[in-house]
Amino acid sequence: MKVEEREISQAVIRRLPRYYRYLGELLANGVERISSNDLSKRMNVTASQIRQDLNNFGGFGQQGYGYNVKYLRTEIGKILGLDVDHNFIIIGAGNLGQALANYASFERSGFKLKGIFDVNPRLEGVTIRGIQIHMMDELKSFIRDNNIEIAVLTIPKTKAIEVAEQLAETGIKGIWNFAHTDLKLGENVIVENVHLSESLMRLSYKIGRYDEEHSQE
Amino acid sequence: MKVEEREISQAVIRRLPRYYRYLGELLANGVERISSNDLSKRMNVTASQIRQDLNNFGGFGQQGYGYNVKYLRTEIGKILGLDVDHNFIIIGAGNLGQALANYASFERSGFKLKGIFDVNPRLEGVTIRGIQIHMMDELKSFIRDNNIEIAVLTIPKTKAIEVAEQLAETGIKGIWNFAHTDLKLGENVIVENVHLSESLMRLSYKIGRYDEEHSQE
Repeated sequence: MKVEEREISQAVIRRLPRYYRYLGELLANGVERISSNDLSKRMNVTASQIRQDLNNFGGFGQQGYGYNVKYLRTEIGKILGLDVDHNFIIIGAGNLGQALANYASFERSGFKLKGIFDVNPRLEGVTIRGIQIHMMDELKSFIRDNNIEIAVLTIPKTKAIEVAEQLAETGIKGIWNFAHTDLKLGENVIVENVHLSESLMRLSYKIGRYDEEHSQE
Repeated sequence: MKVEEREISQAVIRRLPRYYRYLGELLANGVERISSNDLSKRMNVTASQIRQDLNNFGGFGQQGYGYNVKYLRTEIGKILGLDVDHNFIIIGAGNLGQALANYASFERSGFKLKGIFDVNPRLEGVTIRGIQIHMMDELKSFIRDNNIEIAVLTIPKTKAIEVAEQLAETGIKGIWNFAHTDLKLGENVIVENVHLSESLMRLSYKIGRYDEEHSQE
């Protein structure tokens, strides 16, 4: 399927992986076909939102027949790039880097961990789930030799900017950034940020709003 | 400052912690006052976006004078609930739970880790950064006795739903959910999800779009 050439909104992109997850759960439960109404109840979004979102990519549904779960999941998987493998490395073998290295579920979506990098010489050659920890001086050659597409940055923000610039020079395609800073690179390196403390602040904001609304009742 | 009673959009809420972070960096660099234009260049959003976002909360700027960095940061901090302490616990002492337990920076924003919970009896009494690991049978009394407001769920999704329901019964205010499932609880428990694999899929989507656009040139 050919994605149309117009801009897809950030909000739609944010929802796509969630559709993929729900469709995967339906499939695991043996559901073959689902209406946008039923999907909407499960996902707690409106049916018109679902139809609108999927129409961005050409539809997939036939009026009155609902969606074929397997087909729709496969197509959304293709849109997300999950039909091809993506080799990745993790830079920073601390707790978070190790946690991510141990997520076998990434593998099932086509994300293949090929190496882990750290600056601590005591970690050289240590393996996590069979994946070796390398020193940073091997970074560039490793990326080139192993066709690495994505680097995960789980290092402190003071180091992240410098390492990100090194990565950009290697021609890497994407950085999954857990460092608490916004990386400013050329548009040829896609950066996806996970700013955990900002997520925690949003939670605290929402708790505060809830408390405020209910103290006024 | 009294937040107005209208709905603040999700997009604004998503941006607020980022303003807070940039203002903190400015303050650390000794910047006392900044125009929305200068802030906009640094943050890579439009100046009108900044003015619009902050107007949701009453403004803070005086035409032609820019923003007082310290004042604005303090006020955004209050909106985010960072002017008061929030006691929290982590449920799940695996790599991710340990990584979060080791993030001392949460503490500086008022998030106080009071305890860690796990089902593995070998971890009972072990401490991380001085914080003790407890067994799950102590959960309810611990939450009550320690005035716990937030629980962080770093356990597999198969367990998360059950534990979240237990948490809801204790009257906890918020759950920071890292389990790969959407928790469906009453509206009195605020859930903030961090679905890591969905973030990785968004990265892969964006890489694919970039490749597609540039192969067509």
